[in-house]
Amino acid sequence: MVNPMTTLEFHFDFGSPNAYLSHRVIPGIEERTGAKFSYVPVLLGGVFKLTNNRSPVESFGGIRNKLEYQRLEMKRFIEQHGLAEFRFNPHFPVNTLAMMRGAIAAQGLGVFEPYVDAMFRAMWAEERAMADPAVFAEVMKAAGLPAEDIIARSASPEVKQALLDNTGRSVERGSFGSPTFYVGDAIYFGKDRLRDVEEALLAGRG
Amino acid sequence: MVNPMTTLEFHFDFGSPNAYLSHRVIPGIEERTGAKFSYVPVLLGGVFKLTNNRSPVESFGGIRNKLEYQRLEMKRFIEQHGLAEFRFNPHFPVNTLAMMRGAIAAQGLGVFEPYVDAMFRAMWAEERAMADPAVFAEVMKAAGLPAEDIIARSASPEVKQALLDNTGRSVERGSFGSPTFYVGDAIYFGKDRLRDVEEALLAGRG
Repeated sequence: MVNPMTTLEFHFDFGSPNAYLSHRVIPGIEERTGAKFSYVPVLLGGVFKLTNNRSPVESFGGIRNKLEYQRLEMKRFIEQHGLAEFRFNPHFPVNTLAMMRGAIAAQGLGVFEPYVDAMFRAMWAEERAMADPAVFAEVMKAAGLPAEDIIARSASPEVKQALLDNTGRSVERGSFGSPTFYVGDAIYFGKDRLRDVEEALLAGRG
Repeated sequence: MVNPMTTLEFHFDFGSPNAYLSHRVIPGIEERTGAKFSYVPVLLGGVFKLTNNRSPVESFGGIRNKLEYQRLEMKRFIEQHGLAEFRFNPHFPVNTLAMMRGAIAAQGLGVFEPYVDAMFRAMWAEERAMADPAVFAEVMKAAGLPAEDIIARSASPEVKQALLDNTGRSVERGSFGSPTFYVGDAIYFGKDRLRDVEEALLAGRG
């Protein structure tokens, strides 16, 4: 049985394709377990800076066969979960600072869930150039979100600090990349760990 | 149903703790699927050289939280599969050239399976200093293996070349580290992929 006191978190940055793929698989896990993921916006660039980590493309780019294998694993995950709408964003890597601050702002405005879904889809299904402020605003408006309010609130010191705090706390708890999950205090890294997260929830761990 | 024409390979080096953990989990997969793994000795140092890869300790040593996470994952795997006898070898990293040439020699002498099991256990359950020729010979003798024959045969150009050939072919097929599995031509990297290997076998893929 799922322990109702267990906290369940998904630390994400819209710039991570594997965070998107996790986002698409999470509803099924919620349905099967009755647990609900708390989405925690973090700035992946900040996580990398704080941990001296780099993106897989940078870390593995010089290693023969390794990026090819990563692509194969992504393809397998997409096929296994029927995520045919996924498109690798041609503008990758994308500066996600505005989008991530926007996520904090959207929390304050009570539109976090539709905002998160709109950003993930624009990035990883619709190939949008989300670092362009005009495109960013347009995507929000098309999704029926209060674009002006989100942008205005994103510029506040409180929102900027909240994103920094989320990022720093995530690293303090053990994060080093994206996606990262916490079942209680137990960390799980990578989309392929969602199966273990689900098993941990069903076993009442955490 | 498992396709009886599907080849199933485990490319291994005794120096890899994750290869040992895989070796201990493989019998259960063989029992559940009816498939049989072909063990292919490769020199991991050679794989790294050919692919410009490095060991996790070298690659991840400078990244905060990452090695701690890898240790946690290893602990989870060990607990999940009840491998309480595992000990991290205090002599790690170990030069495995003699052991790996010995594996090829043992194939020719018809003692491959007991040799592989003895080497893996000496390395990852018994904390032996296997780069020491005296210890290496002693472990073989204690396991009832023809130590002198294995050592003599290991020095032959044919055995040396066979290990080089295995290593080069493995990289040509997509390997970059240990453990690596092939279901037909489909590559799977890492002990955590054994679950996917089992599913692929049971689905008749490969």
